[in-house]
Amino acid sequence: MTKPLLGQMMDVPLNVSMLIQHAARYAGDTEIVSRRIEGDIHRYTYRDCENRARRLAQALTRLGVEPSERIGTLAWNGYRHLEAYYGIPGMGAVCHTINPRLFPEQIAYIINDADDRYVLFDTTFAPLVAALAPRCPNVKAWIALADAAHLPSIEASVQVPVLCYETLVDAEDGLFEWPVLDERLASYLCYTSGTTGNPKGALYSHRSVVLHAYGAALPDAMGVSARDSVLPVVPMFHVNAWGIPHAAPLSGAKLVLPGKDLDGKSLYELMEAERVTFSAGVPTVWMGLLAHLHESGKRFTSLARTVIGGSCCPPAMLRSFEDDYGVRVIHAWGMTELSPLGTLARLNWAQSQRPAEEQRSLLEKQGTVIFGVDMKIVGEDGRELPRDGVAFGDLHVRGPWVIDRYFGCDASPLVAGWFPTGDVATIDPEGFLHITDRSKDVVKSGGEWISSSEVENVAVAHPDVAEAACIACAHPKWGERPLLVVVKRATGASLTRDMLLAFYEGKVAKWWIPDDVVFVSELPHTATGKLSKMRLREMFRHHYEQMLPSEAARD
Amino acid sequence: MTKPLLGQMMDVPLNVSMLIQHAARYAGDTEIVSRRIEGDIHRYTYRDCENRARRLAQALTRLGVEPSERIGTLAWNGYRHLEAYYGIPGMGAVCHTINPRLFPEQIAYIINDADDRYVLFDTTFAPLVAALAPRCPNVKAWIALADAAHLPSIEASVQVPVLCYETLVDAEDGLFEWPVLDERLASYLCYTSGTTGNPKGALYSHRSVVLHAYGAALPDAMGVSARDSVLPVVPMFHVNAWGIPHAAPLSGAKLVLPGKDLDGKSLYELMEAERVTFSAGVPTVWMGLLAHLHESGKRFTSLARTVIGGSCCPPAMLRSFEDDYGVRVIHAWGMTELSPLGTLARLNWAQSQRPAEEQRSLLEKQGTVIFGVDMKIVGEDGRELPRDGVAFGDLHVRGPWVIDRYFGCDASPLVAGWFPTGDVATIDPEGFLHITDRSKDVVKSGGEWISSSEVENVAVAHPDVAEAACIACAHPKWGERPLLVVVKRATGASLTRDMLLAFYEGKVAKWWIPDDVVFVSELPHTATGKLSKMRLREMFRHHYEQMLPSEAARD
Repeated sequence: MTKPLLGQMMDVPLNVSMLIQHAARYAGDTEIVSRRIEGDIHRYTYRDCENRARRLAQALTRLGVEPSERIGTLAWNGYRHLEAYYGIPGMGAVCHTINPRLFPEQIAYIINDADDRYVLFDTTFAPLVAALAPRCPNVKAWIALADAAHLPSIEASVQVPVLCYETLVDAEDGLFEWPVLDERLASYLCYTSGTTGNPKGALYSHRSVVLHAYGAALPDAMGVSARDSVLPVVPMFHVNAWGIPHAAPLSGAKLVLPGKDLDGKSLYELMEAERVTFSAGVPTVWMGLLAHLHESGKRFTSLARTVIGGSCCPPAMLRSFEDDYGVRVIHAWGMTELSPLGTLARLNWAQSQRPAEEQRSLLEKQGTVIFGVDMKIVGEDGRELPRDGVAFGDLHVRGPWVIDRYFGCDASPLVAGWFPTGDVATIDPEGFLHITDRSKDVVKSGGEWISSSEVENVAVAHPDVAEAACIACAHPKWGERPLLVVVKRATGASLTRDMLLAFYEGKVAKWWIPDDVVFVSELPHTATGKLSKMRLREMFRHHYEQMLPSEAARD
Repeated sequence: MTKPLLGQMMDVPLNVSMLIQHAARYAGDTEIVSRRIEGDIHRYTYRDCENRARRLAQALTRLGVEPSERIGTLAWNGYRHLEAYYGIPGMGAVCHTINPRLFPEQIAYIINDADDRYVLFDTTFAPLVAALAPRCPNVKAWIALADAAHLPSIEASVQVPVLCYETLVDAEDGLFEWPVLDERLASYLCYTSGTTGNPKGALYSHRSVVLHAYGAALPDAMGVSARDSVLPVVPMFHVNAWGIPHAAPLSGAKLVLPGKDLDGKSLYELMEAERVTFSAGVPTVWMGLLAHLHESGKRFTSLARTVIGGSCCPPAMLRSFEDDYGVRVIHAWGMTELSPLGTLARLNWAQSQRPAEEQRSLLEKQGTVIFGVDMKIVGEDGRELPRDGVAFGDLHVRGPWVIDRYFGCDASPLVAGWFPTGDVATIDPEGFLHITDRSKDVVKSGGEWISSSEVENVAVAHPDVAEAACIACAHPKWGERPLLVVVKRATGASLTRDMLLAFYEGKVAKWWIPDDVVFVSELPHTATGKLSKMRLREMFRHHYEQMLPSEAARD
C-alpha cells in the first residue's frame, strides 16, 4: 500500500471574514445602501463596512465575548445587521439571527436554547425586547442598533444593561486583524420556523457558509457579479437571507438593504433609485410589488432578474414578471437545513432552444442542484426512485452545506447519510426537481398521492381567486380527500363552489379534483408568512365526515 | 474559555469526482465534442464521459494502481484525456499531466521525479514514448489513447508493455462507485516549465481543485454557465487547462476539445461549427486566429468572450478582438503554482460607466483576484507597499489553491506564509493588479526599475514590428540599460533602429527608451511557447560593453 500523498497546497481555512475583507480590498468603493428604520437612506462602502465590523469585533471582545459564544440579532436588513454578520463570526463567536415575527414565547425559547449572551436589536423591536428580557436570564445585555440619540427607554423592564451599538463601535480603533479560525467552527445559528414542536437550530460552519457563497454566486445560481446591484427582500433573519449577504461581497456587488418597509411602493422606489438589477424573496412580497406596478402603471428600468423561493412560485406570478415586466424569474428551492440554497431553475443551451411553452414548464419546476449539493427521491421503502419525472417520493439531499444534526441534538436526522427534506418531489431525466408537496401536506386518496400544491396552482390561476389552500381531510371511503379553502378577490364575489370545481376539468386528473370548496375571508399564516396548513387541517378535520353520506360518496 | 463549538454540517469532502458525477446527473445530455488525432470529430455526453471515467478507474485498479500513485498523461485536448482527468484522481491516484513540448531529457526527468507508474499517451507522441521509455525504468506500461486498430508499433524500443486504452476500458462494466476521499489528498501533479534549473512539480489536492473550479466559474472570473459552449485552446497538459475541464462540468457547459491542430483556420472552423461562446488561451494562439480572420475576412458568429493569459496580452490584440470582432477579452494572470487562476480583469458597475479609454486602460491590467486568493506587493525589504497604482514591488499571493511547497521538496518557498510569484507589479486603489515584469526581467537602470514588458508593448504597437523583446544588458555607467531585440514584419523591411526609437517619444519616460535595437530573424522561445529572455540575455550580455564609449554614454 502506497503511503497516502497529500497535496502540497496552502492550508487556508475558509473563514467568513475572508468575504468582507475581500470586498474591502477589491470592491472597496462599492456601495452598501440601507433604508434605515430612522426613515432616511444611509450609504457607505464595503471598506467602511469592514472597518466597522472590525470595530464591532473589538467591542464584543471588550464586552468579554468568547469564541463560540452566541450573539443574537433581532434586526431588519440594514448595514448594522450586515456588520453583525461579519463582526460576530469574524471574531469567532456565533451570529444567531432571530426571526422577530415569531411569537414572543418562541423567541424566548430560541434565545435560551441558543444560550445567547448578547442580543443586538433594531429599535423597532424595543417593545419586544422589553417583553423578552425577563424570560431570558442568560442575556448579559441587549444592544440597541442605534446611536445614543435613538436609544429606546426600556431600562425599566430590562434588568440588565441596554447598550448603544454606535457608542460601542465608536469607542474602538479598528486596529484588529481577523483571526484565522478552524473552518469547521460554528459561524451562524438559524432556527427553523417549525410548524410543529419547538423550533430547531441549524448551526452553520465557516466552511459551509463560504462554500454556499461560492455556489450562490455561480452564473446558473444567482449569478452575482460586480456589475449587479442586489436587493435582498428576503430578511436577513431568514437563513442568512439566502446567502446574498455573503455572495454580494464575494462578487463585489452593490448591496441595497430595504429595512422594514417591504410594501410594493417602498420596494419599487428603492429599486429604481438604486438601479437594482437583482432581487430575491418569497412569493407574498412579489405579489405586493406586482400589485403596485399594476395599479401605478410603472415599469422596472433596471431590474433584470429575481429569485423566488420560500414556497412554490405560482406559475401566474412567474408569467406576469416575465411577460408583463421583462424580469427573468428564477424559481428556487431550499430550506434552513440547506443554508438554504438547493436548486434553481435555469435552462441550459439545448433547453433554451425549445418552444417557449416547453421552456416555461421547465422554469416552473424548482430546477437543478447547485454543484456541491446532490439529491435523490426515495420511496416509502427507502429505495431510490427513478429520475423519470413521473415517480414521486421523499426528497433527500446531501452536501457540504447541508446540516448533519440540529443544534444541541445528539440524534441524527439523517437517513443513510442523506438529509430527508420532508418534501415530496419528482426528478426528471434532465435533473430538474419538481416539488409536488410537503410530505405532510400530500393528500393520500385511496393509497395514491395527490399533490396539494398542484391543486392550489389551478385555483390561483382562476381570476376570481386571491389565495387558495388544498388540504387533506379524513374521508370515510378514501382515507383522505382534498378540500379547497379559498379567499376570493374583491372583484370575484360571484364565484361559487361549482364554478371553481368546473374550472379544474381537463387541468388535473379527475380524481385530484377536490370534493368541496370552502370560502373564507383569510387564510392562517405562520410567523414566516407561509400558509399554515396545520391550522387549516385542524379547522377542517371533520369536514367530509360531517357532510351528508350522499355528498361524501365519490366514485 | 468556552469549548470550541463546531458547526453541525455534513462532512462532505470536496472530491474531484463530484464534478463529473454532478455533470452526468444534471447535464447528462450535454455534449463533449473532440477533434481527434484520427482527424474526425467525436461526440458524446457527460453521462458517457463519466461512465468511461469509471471504467478507466476500474481498469487502473485491475492494473494494480494504488491510491496516491502517479499516472502520467502525454496528450492533447480530447475526450480520452478528459476521462483520465476524472478516472485517475477519482479512484485516488494522481493525474500527472506532462507537457510533450519539453525536451525529451526534461520529460524523462519529470516522469522519473514524479515516479509515474503508467503513462497514457496520444499516438502522436509514439516516437517520443519510444525515446523516453528506456530512460524511465519505473513505468510499468505505456497506455496508448487509441483503439486496437490504431496502436503504434513501438514495442521494439519499449521493453515494458504498450497497452491499448480502448481495450482496457471496454473490458470493464462501469459498476464502480467513486470512493469518498480525504479532500487533502493529491489529485493532479503539474510541473512548471522552469526556464532555470529542473522543472518543479505543483501537487494539487482534491480540495484545491474543487475550490479553484468554483472560483473559475464565477461570473467575474470565466463566468461559465450551462448556456456556454467552451473551447479551451490552452492545452490540458498546461496547469489543468486553467480549470476549464473542471469548471465546465461544474456548470454543465458544453466542452469542445480541439486536439492537436491549433492553427487559426482549424480553431475558427471548430468554433463556428460548435457555436463556441467562450475560449481561453495564450496570446500566440490568438495571434494566429486573428491573422486567419483578417486574411479570410471571416467573422465570429457565436464567440462572445475569451480569456487571454499565460503572458501579458499586448493591448493591440485586446483592441483588435474587441473593436474588429466584438469579442470581449478577459485579461488574466496566473501561474502553475496558483492552479493557475489568480486575477481576471473585469469591470464593476461604476468602472463600466467611465469613458471608454479609462475602461480600456483598466482592462489592459491583469484585474482583481478571484475570491479565495489574496495578493500584496512588497519592497526589497519585504514590507508591504501601498496599493496606489504607482509603487511596484514583488507580487506575493496566498489562498487555498496556492502551493505550499513543491512536490518532493521539503524546503518551503513561502515568505511569511505568502508565495512569492517572481512577478513585479503594481496594485491600484481599486485592487487592479498590473504586472510590470518578471522580477528577473526587470531592467535596473541607475537604481531605478524599468518594466521590460511596457517597453515591448510600445514596440509591438509599431506596424512594422512582428515581435519584440526588451532585455537588461550590463552597462558601464547605469548598471543595466534596456536593449530591444526585434523581429520585423515581412512588410516592414525598411524599419530602422532610429525610426523605432523615435516611435517611443512621448510613450514612455525618456530614460525608459532602449539605448539600442537589434533586428533578428526570430526570437528564442521556451517549450511552452514563452519568449526565452534568459537565452536572449546570454546572447546579448556584452552588447553595451562592446559599443563604443561615445555610443554607450547616455545622459
